[in-house]
Formats: sequence, structure tokens, C-alpha cells
Amino acid sequence: MTENLSIIKIGGDLVNNDTVLASYLEALTRIDTPKILVHGGGKQATALNEQLGIASPMIDGRRVTTKEALAVVTMVYGGLINKNIVAQLQKYGCNAIGLTGADANSVVATKRSPIPIDFGYAGDVKEVNARFIYGLLKENILPVFCAITHDQKGQLLNTNADTMAAEIAMALTTYYKVSLFYCFDKRGVLYDVADESTLIDQLNTGTYTKLKQQGKIHQGMLPKIDNGFHALTNGVDTVRIGNITMLTQSANKCTQLFL
Amino acid sequence: MTENLSIIKIGGDLVNNDTVLASYLEALTRIDTPKILVHGGGKQATALNEQLGIASPMIDGRRVTTKEALAVVTMVYGGLINKNIVAQLQKYGCNAIGLTGADANSVVATKRSPIPIDFGYAGDVKEVNARFIYGLLKENILPVFCAITHDQKGQLLNTNADTMAAEIAMALTTYYKVSLFYCFDKRGVLYDVADESTLIDQLNTGTYTKLKQQGKIHQGMLPKIDNGFHALTNGVDTVRIGNITMLTQSANKCTQLFL
Repeated sequence: MTENLSIIKIGGDLVNNDTVLASYLEALTRIDTPKILVHGGGKQATALNEQLGIASPMIDGRRVTTKEALAVVTMVYGGLINKNIVAQLQKYGCNAIGLTGADANSVVATKRSPIPIDFGYAGDVKEVNARFIYGLLKENILPVFCAITHDQKGQLLNTNADTMAAEIAMALTTYYKVSLFYCFDKRGVLYDVADESTLIDQLNTGTYTKLKQQGKIHQGMLPKIDNGFHALTNGVDTVRIGNITMLTQSANKCTQLFL
Repeated sequence: MTENLSIIKIGGDLVNNDTVLASYLEALTRIDTPKILVHGGGKQATALNEQLGIASPMIDGRRVTTKEALAVVTMVYGGLINKNIVAQLQKYGCNAIGLTGADANSVVATKRSPIPIDFGYAGDVKEVNARFIYGLLKENILPVFCAITHDQKGQLLNTNADTMAAEIAMALTTYYKVSLFYCFDKRGVLYDVADESTLIDQLNTGTYTKLKQQGKIHQGMLPKIDNGFHALTNGVDTVRIGNITMLTQSANKCTQLFL
């Protein structure tokens, strides 16, 4: 029987609050299966950009990664957040290792074409070195990825953390039965973001397409859901979106995606 | 016959200049033996401290690592410098991985006692996980360490990079015949810092003690030399201090330490 593997992506809002983050990390260590953590960054990078007076241009609601912004992201995601998560996990007796995609060539990306829109140093994942990651898991080491990749030509690239998690999940299906968890502060995908009782506990592609056309899915959820369906189509066994309790309480409601 | 291993520590001044750093990294990739890189940080952390208005107190000529300064060091050494070095090495086809001591629990330290002097979040190396590092080297992966460690209780600690290199070198003698190289911008230990022709090409403990008593050794060299002798006393085969050419040109003059 193929062994289970959990890929857990935790979002920016969770990472910004030390107490919330600590409870997530503690919950993580209680998951029995091998696991991989992928984290976003969010507010801390924005705050440092502001402190340093670095402009942070947006096009079509998406941030442009200038050279200066990439340096900040590398410092905040790759250094501050990543290494503090690793140190916290070590405290809980969990042997974590912090990685960018450049480390051991684990996640290679291509710089996004500047045409039609130049998003700067943004990378789209090209290849995941599943063999190396598998080797770590076999040694009982928990890989903690921040969403930075490289192009094998010396350039680091800022990458979407939801996509990074999905790509790693897909690549690891060679070795494991993979479950992908998108963790954030809501119970899952909601009809009404302000009302947690409006949870959609099962979402298939047909319903998703309809709801999206009707504008009933919150904009911020689209990357998670799109990446989640992409992962399901490419061999990942289950994709769930929800809050911390879905990691530790099996009866807890969250949103599960179905093709 | 035991295999050779080179531990190369590159100092702050080299790391601060992109062109110089690139030539070092390129030279590194031409060394045939397995190798480990340890880098300092220096000016970039100081510059970020200044930009952010973070005080950087000194006691007895040594910097105190406040909580805020530790965050900066974690960003600059653990993120910006470390990940850019890794990406550059990957460009040269060298499969590098960037690490702090927290990663895979590779270097554990103890927070320095606040008595008699409180240096803040400064760590003294307690244990090096040589087995993990050996496993990477066996996979043809080049570990790149920044001088940050952890205490296994969730705390990252700022550590002297010369000491970190010496401790890693000593720990790896279990598996290899180890050569330790302290690389900086001079040809080695000089009688007169302003005159490269005054190189001391061989330095033993007796001569060192005398020269130190006479105040003839530049203050900045003491940690390298002290750590170097400590390494030699603890099984490291050779310790050399010099510039980039000692890595690639065997006939080049540098300072070699002898007990």
C-alpha cells in the first residue's frame, strides 16, 4: 500500500500572528504521516517594504516583484519567517529543514514572460526535484518551503505559495498518496465570507464554474481552488481548504474539492 | 584512505562585493574534493540596521545581538546572502543547499551566559550533526552555512562565523581528512597589515603566543587564528588563512598554522 503524505500550505495571515502560528505548528507535529509545509509571507514583507521606502507596484490586483522587492521577500520569507518556523518545529521535537527552491535545486521555475504584463522577478514552477524531497522525508525530516524558486541561472524568483504547494504535491505522487491542505483562517470556501455557516463542504468543478460565473466565489479563493483542481487532475488524492481544525479533527467540516 | 573535505569560510568583506563574491564562488566550484561553505555577513546587516533605525550596541568591541538585531541577521545572513550564494552556485552547476544550524538540527548552540557581559542572542556551538552533513556530501550536495544556530528550544542564535567553520570542521573529522580555509582579502597573517610582503607563511603556537604578547598580530586576526589552532588540536588536518588564490593555486603563499 502506498504511504500517505500531507502537504500543508499555511497562508500569510496565519504566519503574521506568532500565537496563531505556534498553534498551527504544534498541530502539525501531531499529524502522523510524513508531511511538507509550504508557507506564504504576506504582511511582514509589505511592512518591511514600507519601512525601507520600497515601492510595491500592483498591476491587475497582482503585485510586481521589483529587484528591491525580491530582496525583501528573500529576507522575510526565506530568512525571518522560514528560519523561525524551523526553530519552532525543532522545539516540538520535529526535525524541520527550511528551503527555497534554489536549495538542492528542489524547485526550478521560469521567469514569467514580461509580455503582456511585466510582473518582474515572478517565477512559474517548471520542475520539482521530488527525489531529493523524498530523501529528506525518508530521513524523517520535515521540509519547510517558502515560496521562492530559482531559474538555475543564478536568479531567485518570487512564486505563488498556493501554486508551489500544488506543484510539490503533484510531484510527490510518484512516491506517496498525497493529501493537500490549504490552511487559512476560515472554515473553507464560503457562500458568504462573513458567515462561517455558509460553508461549501463539497465543491466539484461543475459547481465551481457556475458559482464563479455568478461571482459568488470570493476573489481571494480563486488561486487556492484553481491550484487545488489542477492538483487533483494531476494525481493528488485529496485537496481540502479550511482552518487548523481540519488537520487534527477528522470530523471537522472544511471544503473538499472533487473533480 | 580517508577522503579529503574542504571547509571554506568566506568573510564579510568578500560577501559584500558581488563581483568578488562571484569569483570566489566560481573558484569554489573548481575544487575537486567535497566541500562546505560557511559565510559571514558584515556590512549588509549593519546597513539594514541603520536603515531600520535599530540600535547596534557594542561592548568591549563586540556587537550585542538584541532581539531586533537578531531578526535583521536572520533576514540578511539566513535569507538574502545565503540564498543568493546558493542560487549563484546552482548557476555554476554546483548543487548547493543553504542552511542555518536550526535546519535539520545541524548546529546546536547554547545562549551565552549574560554574566559577566550580556551579548544578547549570541550562541556558542554545543553540537554539530555531522551525520546529516555527511549525508548531504555523499549526495554530492554542497552545504552553505550562515552563522546562525539554534538552542533546540525555539530560539535562533547569532554565532561567530569563524567558530562555526572550526566546529563544523572538527565534527566532520569523523568521516574525512579535513582542511579548513579561512578566506579573506589579505594573503594571510601579516606582520604589517598594510604590506602584503610581510606574510607569515608558517605560524606555530609558540610564535603566535610571542607575537600576540608583542601586540604584533592584528586584532581582527585573533578569532581566526584561535579557532584555527583549536581546530588543529581537535583533529582537523590543515588550517590555512589567505585569499582566494590559495583555493585554486597550490603554489600560492598563505599562512598555514602548525601546533
